[in-house]
Amino acid sequence: MTIDNVSWNKSFGGWHKQYTHRSSTLNCDMRFAIFLPPHIAQGEKVPVLYWLSGLTCTDENFMQKAGAQRLAAELGIAIVAPDTSPRGEGVADDPEGAYDFGLGAGFYVNATQAPWNRHYRMYDYVVNELPALIEAHFPVNDKRAISGHSMGGHGALMIALRNPSRYSSVSAFSPISNPMNCPWGQKAFTGYLGNDKTTWQAYDSSELMRTHQQPVPALVDQGDQDNFLVEQLKPEALLAAAEAADYPLELRMQEGFDHSYYFIASFIEDHLRFHAKHLA
Amino acid sequence: MTIDNVSWNKSFGGWHKQYTHRSSTLNCDMRFAIFLPPHIAQGEKVPVLYWLSGLTCTDENFMQKAGAQRLAAELGIAIVAPDTSPRGEGVADDPEGAYDFGLGAGFYVNATQAPWNRHYRMYDYVVNELPALIEAHFPVNDKRAISGHSMGGHGALMIALRNPSRYSSVSAFSPISNPMNCPWGQKAFTGYLGNDKTTWQAYDSSELMRTHQQPVPALVDQGDQDNFLVEQLKPEALLAAAEAADYPLELRMQEGFDHSYYFIASFIEDHLRFHAKHLA
Repeated sequence: MTIDNVSWNKSFGGWHKQYTHRSSTLNCDMRFAIFLPPHIAQGEKVPVLYWLSGLTCTDENFMQKAGAQRLAAELGIAIVAPDTSPRGEGVADDPEGAYDFGLGAGFYVNATQAPWNRHYRMYDYVVNELPALIEAHFPVNDKRAISGHSMGGHGALMIALRNPSRYSSVSAFSPISNPMNCPWGQKAFTGYLGNDKTTWQAYDSSELMRTHQQPVPALVDQGDQDNFLVEQLKPEALLAAAEAADYPLELRMQEGFDHSYYFIASFIEDHLRFHAKHLA
Repeated sequence: MTIDNVSWNKSFGGWHKQYTHRSSTLNCDMRFAIFLPPHIAQGEKVPVLYWLSGLTCTDENFMQKAGAQRLAAELGIAIVAPDTSPRGEGVADDPEGAYDFGLGAGFYVNATQAPWNRHYRMYDYVVNELPALIEAHFPVNDKRAISGHSMGGHGALMIALRNPSRYSSVSAFSPISNPMNCPWGQKAFTGYLGNDKTTWQAYDSSELMRTHQQPVPALVDQGDQDNFLVEQLKPEALLAAAEAADYPLELRMQEGFDHSYYFIASFIEDHLRFHAKHLA
């Protein structure tokens, strides 16, 4: 498990760094970014917030655009941002180069269908391989939170709901809340998981929330001017599941905001403080 | 003087918007971005900070990466970010497509040499046409500050020094402080202004600071791990000019920081609060 540091920038007294490594889960080389707060200079071990990005993104979008480092530096939290799919030579892509399937669109599932099952195992990568790598190589403790945007909001909620003992808290911006019942999710699940919809349920946050055993505190922000709100995101399904299952979900509709990083930047402080409270 | 709104995003309770317009100064269509703070909803007229970006940038880099909107929304300041050169069909570019001359590299001068003198008049655009446009179309008052990064730091300092009655304050990150004496500046000035170095002095901040009549309060941040520090940026020339001319310049060397937007984001709050104090 070696990692190679490929870039570094001082940021708010801490460090933003990018690393590449060979992923045994994904059978390819992967890049991730990490923000390390200034606290580590004093020998402190810090908790980690994992950030999962949306369709077409890499490890860079959140680190460049969200403005999270200011808060992470203040609160003493490391942030880890993986890529959104396996990459590189030999990794299958959508034959028509669609933005919502294949490269940049791993949907945080373990694919069971050929040819995708050779590389597209982002669920295992995010839940197991990446945290093991981070905890082996960086001065972090075993406290973890998880967050994400859009496809990554789906990933964060779904992963926290399936692994409540691994995450202190979960949050999401504009998550794909009920992927079984929207075009993006149906396309991805059909392609990666096949036609048997019973296999889809394990990756659908609204389904998982409805049947949860152990809750992870959850905060969701959704802009009411988001172009994808009605057709793709369906926060009402998540809200209904939370109400039916008495789940500790705070879902906030934010007036006038859209699906962009301008929205994320506007509320990232609330998310970091929410996670800090639960990571403490 | 019409402008067309081509994008809008709610941001920290205010609005990020992009506009296109026909520039009579540059003889081409131009795009700029503006952040309007929430204060304008109450009918308030707000002051404007003009941001000049560095080589290869457009109106988008600062708005997406600096995290300035949070402060501008708090302090009640509009931010305007123009492009870094004329653009579009018929606008000459460096024949070899260099990143440091031609498109994306207008250097904020009025070119006198063909073929550049047909479009490359970024000095007049930033000093005159753009503020007139902003003040005609948006709820802003006539208080202005100016800031920028690298080539844009040169632009901000040089423009404030030449127009002290138009700007309350000036700041810069990693400015090209003495362009007459560095490769980037010499290439640009030779190309746009010709070989007569006496014409270069009017665009060199260290020269202008040394001979200034009316000072504009100035804050400069420079990372000491900036790859361009020694060869291109030369803050020591600016510091020597300030000392020789008793100029109110605060120049801060920031330990460990580089030339990136991670550096800018780390200190943008100080710059916004500095400008707010002088714009009040």
